[in-house]
Amino acid sequence: MRILVVNPNTTASMTERIGACAQAATSAGTTVRAVNPDMGPASIESHYDEALAVPGLLSEIARGEADGVDGYVVACFGDPGLDAARELATGPVVGIAEAAMRTATYLGRGFSVVTTLGRTCGRAWDLAERYGVQRFCRAVRACEIPVLDLDDPGSDAREVITEECRRAVAEDGSDAIVLGCAGMADLCTHISARIGVPVVDGVTAATRTVESLVVLGLRTGARGEFAAPRPKSYTGLLRDFTIA
Amino acid sequence: MRILVVNPNTTASMTERIGACAQAATSAGTTVRAVNPDMGPASIESHYDEALAVPGLLSEIARGEADGVDGYVVACFGDPGLDAARELATGPVVGIAEAAMRTATYLGRGFSVVTTLGRTCGRAWDLAERYGVQRFCRAVRACEIPVLDLDDPGSDAREVITEECRRAVAEDGSDAIVLGCAGMADLCTHISARIGVPVVDGVTAATRTVESLVVLGLRTGARGEFAAPRPKSYTGLLRDFTIA
Amino acid sequence: MRILVVNPNTTASMTERIGACAQAATSAGTTVRAVNPDMGPASIESHYDEALAVPGLLSEIARGEADGVDGYVVACFGDPGLDAARELATGPVVGIAEAAMRTATYLGRGFSVVTTLGRTCGRAWDLAERYGVQRFCRAVRACEIPVLDLDDPGSDAREVITEECRRAVAEDGSDAIVLGCAGMADLCTHISARIGVPVVDGVTAATRTVESLVVLGLRTGARGEFAAPRPKSYTGLLRDFTIA
Amino acid sequence: MRILVVNPNTTASMTERIGACAQAATSAGTTVRAVNPDMGPASIESHYDEALAVPGLLSEIARGEADGVDGYVVACFGDPGLDAARELATGPVVGIAEAAMRTATYLGRGFSVVTTLGRTCGRAWDLAERYGVQRFCRAVRACEIPVLDLDDPGSDAREVITEECRRAVAEDGSDAIVLGCAGMADLCTHISARIGVPVVDGVTAATRTVESLVVLGLRTGARGEFAAPRPKSYTGLLRDFTIA
Amino acid sequence: MRILVVNPNTTASMTERIGACAQAATSAGTTVRAVNPDMGPASIESHYDEALAVPGLLSEIARGEADGVDGYVVACFGDPGLDAARELATGPVVGIAEAAMRTATYLGRGFSVVTTLGRTCGRAWDLAERYGVQRFCRAVRACEIPVLDLDDPGSDAREVITEECRRAVAEDGSDAIVLGCAGMADLCTHISARIGVPVVDGVTAATRTVESLVVLGLRTGARGEFAAPRPKSYTGLLRDFTIA
Amino acid sequence: MRILVVNPNTTASMTERIGACAQAATSAGTTVRAVNPDMGPASIESHYDEALAVPGLLSEIARGEADGVDGYVVACFGDPGLDAARELATGPVVGIAEAAMRTATYLGRGFSVVTTLGRTCGRAWDLAERYGVQRFCRAVRACEIPVLDLDDPGSDAREVITEECRRAVAEDGSDAIVLGCAGMADLCTHISARIGVPVVDGVTAATRTVESLVVLGLRTGARGEFAAPRPKSYTGLLRDFTIA
Repeated sequence: MRILVVNPNTTASMTERIGACAQAATSAGTTVRAVNPDMGPASIESHYDEALAVPGLLSEIARGEADGVDGYVVACFGDPGLDAARELATGPVVGIAEAAMRTATYLGRGFSVVTTLGRTCGRAWDLAERYGVQRFCRAVRACEIPVLDLDDPGSDAREVITEECRRAVAEDGSDAIVLGCAGMADLCTHISARIGVPVVDGVTAATRTVESLVVLGLRTGARGEFAAPRPKSYTGLLRDFTIA
Repeated sequence: MRILVVNPNTTASMTERIGACAQAATSAGTTVRAVNPDMGPASIESHYDEALAVPGLLSEIARGEADGVDGYVVACFGDPGLDAARELATGPVVGIAEAAMRTATYLGRGFSVVTTLGRTCGRAWDLAERYGVQRFCRAVRACEIPVLDLDDPGSDAREVITEECRRAVAEDGSDAIVLGCAGMADLCTHISARIGVPVVDGVTAATRTVESLVVLGLRTGARGEFAAPRPKSYTGLLRDFTIA
Repeated sequence: MRILVVNPNTTASMTERIGACAQAATSAGTTVRAVNPDMGPASIESHYDEALAVPGLLSEIARGEADGVDGYVVACFGDPGLDAARELATGPVVGIAEAAMRTATYLGRGFSVVTTLGRTCGRAWDLAERYGVQRFCRAVRACEIPVLDLDDPGSDAREVITEECRRAVAEDGSDAIVLGCAGMADLCTHISARIGVPVVDGVTAATRTVESLVVLGLRTGARGEFAAPRPKSYTGLLRDFTIA
Repeated sequence: MRILVVNPNTTASMTERIGACAQAATSAGTTVRAVNPDMGPASIESHYDEALAVPGLLSEIARGEADGVDGYVVACFGDPGLDAARELATGPVVGIAEAAMRTATYLGRGFSVVTTLGRTCGRAWDLAERYGVQRFCRAVRACEIPVLDLDDPGSDAREVITEECRRAVAEDGSDAIVLGCAGMADLCTHISARIGVPVVDGVTAATRTVESLVVLGLRTGARGEFAAPRPKSYTGLLRDFTIA
Repeated sequence: MRILVVNPNTTASMTERIGACAQAATSAGTTVRAVNPDMGPASIESHYDEALAVPGLLSEIARGEADGVDGYVVACFGDPGLDAARELATGPVVGIAEAAMRTATYLGRGFSVVTTLGRTCGRAWDLAERYGVQRFCRAVRACEIPVLDLDDPGSDAREVITEECRRAVAEDGSDAIVLGCAGMADLCTHISARIGVPVVDGVTAATRTVESLVVLGLRTGARGEFAAPRPKSYTGLLRDFTIA
Repeated sequence: MRILVVNPNTTASMTERIGACAQAATSAGTTVRAVNPDMGPASIESHYDEALAVPGLLSEIARGEADGVDGYVVACFGDPGLDAARELATGPVVGIAEAAMRTATYLGRGFSVVTTLGRTCGRAWDLAERYGVQRFCRAVRACEIPVLDLDDPGSDAREVITEECRRAVAEDGSDAIVLGCAGMADLCTHISARIGVPVVDGVTAATRTVESLVVLGLRTGARGEFAAPRPKSYTGLLRDFTIA
């Protein structure tokens, strides 16, 4: 089985870390390839960034289809372009926010999301509501760490995030923590060991979910809303997105 | 006051009709300009189309900001890119789905949405939930008319839509109808006269809403989630979206 | 166009201030008349007051109908008698709570209501739920200022309210403030200038909404629940409310 | 114990039937008195009627307070003036819609409301939502019978209502029926015997609920929203409602 | 009328106290018998305890049916086995959590639950949601008192609980308190007298509710989900639960 | 890794089929053992059956703990005893209803559940609400097939169920089907091939979910509600459930 993990921002070092975490979570016989687009924002920290990460993401999905990939992970906690990706892909597509939040619901009554910048918390609540996990989500907490700081070995991001996770357990009474950024994937074990409650990372959760869906022969139902997009002419800068 | 109405698809004839309806709805002293991007899909009929309409939309908003526009209408019933547009714009930004559905709530207990293709109904429900009007929305009904047929004078779209609106009143017990596509703006009076219940078009509703917000001195609260996007490097095809 | 703004309490000085704010918010060609009933409570600060303000309100609506008024504003934040008024009136009727809260939803993810007495907060939550804006309403905060103090130039109401609005922004993380009393209409600009987030007053918001509905040819759907009341004999003190 | 059942319309024959049903449902030692106001509508069939029934209802509550009544039933399925009555009364006040709908929740997973005119169904849904029983309420069905027909021995109302209840069981899969009008109280046994599922009448359910609250020493919590109304001057037609 | 109150734990002294409170709340002519199973946990303080209290509870219900009991109370605040008991019993079955929480909704806008151990709070929220009273339930507060301490005259449980109730009123702004354990039934008057807001005990509330349902001729609707269990062979330890 | 799949009814032939399906869904290195209790009902078709299946289920979980099992599946679509099992088990415990319904949310906007007897539909709705998937669940449909008929090679159950699934797609517009009984696990491929939309079986979905949780190092958060049950004396028939 071949799973394509798409990091929708353009920062290759983050893509590499994400890919390593995803591969480590798979079973024998599954190959993970992690890619990022060559167009779009270096990191995703606003609705503007998120919207503009989608064309690159869809390009990578289209390329994956040409390659016969079995399933996809969208590796940004805003789950950008998920519905559009499901129209394009034959196999299943899973976002890391949906996988992380749904996985956490198996672990107790409530979880807290710990994320990067405060301005992204609203989007996490949007997704919690959309995925039906709002009743499990006790808080969305920001560390006010820019995304690319997670990629900087010299930053104190790891400590700051661990501390916020600890506070989440104490103050929210949560049974589990959800890490709110793909760039935190490699911190999961570190934090879990220190705070003593389960910590869910979306990259590994989504990769396992895609793998399971493929094993079970399940893919997006494609007879209605998620059928392949109708043939359509695209013009200008985006002309290559034309559906013949 | 200057209002920019952005049709996020690239079909100029539709833009023209939309612009005429919007202008007709304004008060003395308000100038409407209707534009469409030069990149993206000819019509929006899938999540894929919708996602890829956003870069063009945001370009037009950015251009509007440079021109000192007072407020914006996003003239596609999926309200694509609305959150991102609010980060970019100084003045208010209103989507036609949100304006139409909220306007309809003033007219009775329940409304029905009548739209184009069945595959877009899911998105209308998403928006109804997000805007908190789900309790007023009794049904989303599709006519299975492709968007560009609305632009074809020879099609029977007007009759088909009127008939579906009539069924909505009879079967859903709705007090009002919401037209689910910007391309239906000029049918509003025709249908209303025939079915005897109020019919809300989003283009005019949103234009009036923007005008009112500007008169009242109200614009998006910009201290948190909707602050201007952080400076960020964009690469490749989308390099012009870089925020300096 | 003629809009009737009904202040449902009997305090004429408040009516006058409300009328001035409403008129100032309209476009050229719109005339606002503000009235208050000659029966009922001097101010509305309980469910009892609110219920007993409704007969006077309905009298004024009936008089407006005889005068051929185009649309109505109910200028008390409890939106008393709104459903009944919609049955009586040919044109649209808008309450200031519904208009203010819905208007605030265009301005960001969340708003706080700042109102007079704590005992009225429950009613504001009722309305937020009924109008579907509960997911946008982060808090309802009381200043413990009696309504008529707003009419007293010597009181420190303006400062107390401004301060509570400031706290709402800081503590609730709200993107906008909704003023929870018609008597605060003339404080809107003052407060907004001081706290740096948009402040919505219901009187002006509702007046603009009525004006827009009239321009768009929209009125309450009157084929079912909101049809004119059936002919009915009324007796005793209320005999003049008989529907012939 | 003395319970006052207030029929908020002015039709004395209906009051009498209501009183007899209520008295029959009480335990030894409880006296029911049923009254109706001498002002207001002959029957309640619109929001207008409902709003204008409230002053008369509140007069009767005030009179009951002077008489030392222990608790009150508001005997109209729209539960008019309930919040205001709770401010006035020392003892508990229960509406027949709230009592009927809550009582029905003990009898299975879902109930259907069968009521008089279709135009009142919206109000029943409002109340279901407000009382938190919406998840139990499968349908609100109208028989299109004017309220006063229930008082006419020659009408076929009993058969029509029984038939609608039967359809509710078959089509809604409901475990119980709630009768949606005080005037149906004396039909309860008749219908139940014919359709073979439990049928709940609000007048008896509310009377039993008031009796239980009084026995248990429970009354409305009066430290906040439901404290006695503040002293307030009332003028004009309603001057007698002044709170000294 | 004969009401059987089943305490689902095996602690006879608690059963006795519960029975006395229940009997005291009934009207003339009603006999309460309180029993507890001879199998299962000494107290119910976890999901494990709750699940294993159900067989004993169902045995007692079956015995009650053989005895011709008119209605049942399940006297544990987790309402264990309520749905199953309703399938077995001919007459109504009421849980103390559902009765207490629904009763409290008649007393104001919001209540707080005060219970024993923090680990049981989740179950109280589950029930609040299931019964539709979540919008009235402002908080579930634990005193961290083991259930059997309530049975120990030497403990300071009474003072600790009273204090927590007082805090609930002050901090949650609740209009009423719901006691979250059958073992607190006899504290109800004591606490109410000290904190000045209504305090609802589920044992007495449920007993009154059963009594009312029986008087009104209402029992569980038994044509669908709550029909008698299908004949079924049971084996092993539980063979006596076979339905012939 | 060792996963224990507990069929909570006592029918060994069903257990065997369930075990085979579960094993087939796992990755290399995972061993599934399927067991059923030696006490309790032969099949689970009512709330009574479900409640009485729990002691046997908990015995098997306790035995699994003694054996050092890594994770558990509860293989009945009512998810009986799930919360209690989570208190007992060190590793993760997943119910087949929760796994099936959550898995289906990855496959489109809406799913239909197709189950055995109509009287169990209510429980499926309970679980949909509890797991937050109610917004994805369009219908719960019963085939009126007793559970043990699924175990009878001569029955026409397979055809009846396939037909109901086909109707669900056509009438509910669902993107996916969820099979509502563990006994249907081996029909999944057959049905999916015939109706052309994804069909989710809970046994395999839950087994994959447990396997993923174990791989990711995730287990139930055990610091609060789901801590091990407190030591407690159990008596009578259930004395062996005592927690020392």
